[in-house]
Amino acid sequence: MNKKNNNDIEFILVEPSHSGNIGACARAIKNMGFKKLGIVKPRKTITKEAYYRAKSAKDILDNALIYESFDQAIEDKNLILATSARERTIPWPTFFIDDMSEEIKSELQSAKNKTAVIFGREDNGLSNEELQKCHIHLVIPTSAEYPSLNLSHALQLVAFEIRKITLDSSILKSDERDIATNEENEKLLEHLMEVLKKIDFYDPRSSKQVKTRIERLLKKTRLDKMEMGILRGFLSKIMDFEK
Amino acid sequence: MNKKNNNDIEFILVEPSHSGNIGACARAIKNMGFKKLGIVKPRKTITKEAYYRAKSAKDILDNALIYESFDQAIEDKNLILATSARERTIPWPTFFIDDMSEEIKSELQSAKNKTAVIFGREDNGLSNEELQKCHIHLVIPTSAEYPSLNLSHALQLVAFEIRKITLDSSILKSDERDIATNEENEKLLEHLMEVLKKIDFYDPRSSKQVKTRIERLLKKTRLDKMEMGILRGFLSKIMDFEK
Repeated sequence: MNKKNNNDIEFILVEPSHSGNIGACARAIKNMGFKKLGIVKPRKTITKEAYYRAKSAKDILDNALIYESFDQAIEDKNLILATSARERTIPWPTFFIDDMSEEIKSELQSAKNKTAVIFGREDNGLSNEELQKCHIHLVIPTSAEYPSLNLSHALQLVAFEIRKITLDSSILKSDERDIATNEENEKLLEHLMEVLKKIDFYDPRSSKQVKTRIERLLKKTRLDKMEMGILRGFLSKIMDFEK
Repeated sequence: MNKKNNNDIEFILVEPSHSGNIGACARAIKNMGFKKLGIVKPRKTITKEAYYRAKSAKDILDNALIYESFDQAIEDKNLILATSARERTIPWPTFFIDDMSEEIKSELQSAKNKTAVIFGREDNGLSNEELQKCHIHLVIPTSAEYPSLNLSHALQLVAFEIRKITLDSSILKSDERDIATNEENEKLLEHLMEVLKKIDFYDPRSSKQVKTRIERLLKKTRLDKMEMGILRGFLSKIMDFEK
């Protein structure tokens, strides 16, 4: 019954540098019953080594979606989860992979969501800017002595936990809201910034902080399409009024 | 508080054929806070590739215990867990890795146990004979379509779940019995077979079944050292009586 949902969860690697890792990720995705692999600007092409490591998950590699940029990868997604190293200190909704909130679990089950689960570079992880474009940060519990997992191993653990959630019939169904996509959120933010500038509330040169905070608020709120429409209408009204 | 216990859990690979896998396993072991890697008859030596994949877990590779045989690897262990593919049909105490019984969890926490977690060959897994020498079979939930995980990925998941158990303070402590080692069990079995033959209960040519069943019973019972002493004394008495 959750098959449809599983298929809509895309595991996205950002600038992976080892082709073997890409193959091992493809295998882990298929082992856990998922189908979609996305890759942002791979630093190596998908080589023989990748196919060798993918074993019977060659189809996942063949169908991998290649993106030109991080933003392109998340454009059409409305639930974006990032795996993040423990030491990050950005205040952001953060969960251990095996202890997500009921709300997130319900969102992961919702067939209305297009979900991305994002993994950073082998050497540098995800940038703060990239992390702030995600709704939820996931942390893998590890030994403090040596917390750095191999990329495909991290994906294996996350996919294992998400599989469990998608198959868990005890999770209360969400109200299946039509959540706005990342692209729609970006447009709202742009619109809002325009309005704030017009009404002299916000000076883009002096306060990058304000934009970051509003962006964070938007990410947390996860507006649905109807709320988005109301806010956009409201902003348009203010713009008209100012003229 | 569980550090001591963690150190006593040994992850054992049986005849691994890829040196890279051995390295990736070493890293996964260290990432999850464990220290011991055992290898039964590695089909390749521990090459540069293994060290490359181990990254900062070189110490785990350097200290790996190499065994001549499966029996040698489990000789001094008194809690032996085997990872097994789903399709096995041997009736044996079996748990999903994320749903072990409270009893096993408690055993995994007990500092009195010397624990082995065993992983089979990349191509052939563990033989039925090997599986029957283990107390518990662990199964990794996977997609039915493609259930075969990479060796180091399987180890990663199992180590992740066992780590969680060893750190879980809500698990009731067992009575910390001194469980007999595998070697002691083997000796008891030998002794018992001798007695059964003497009293004409058991003909080794005709009924391998009987031995297998008694072996299974012993594995399930997990005698402690005191019970072992009583049984050995009892068997000796019967042998004397028969003379």
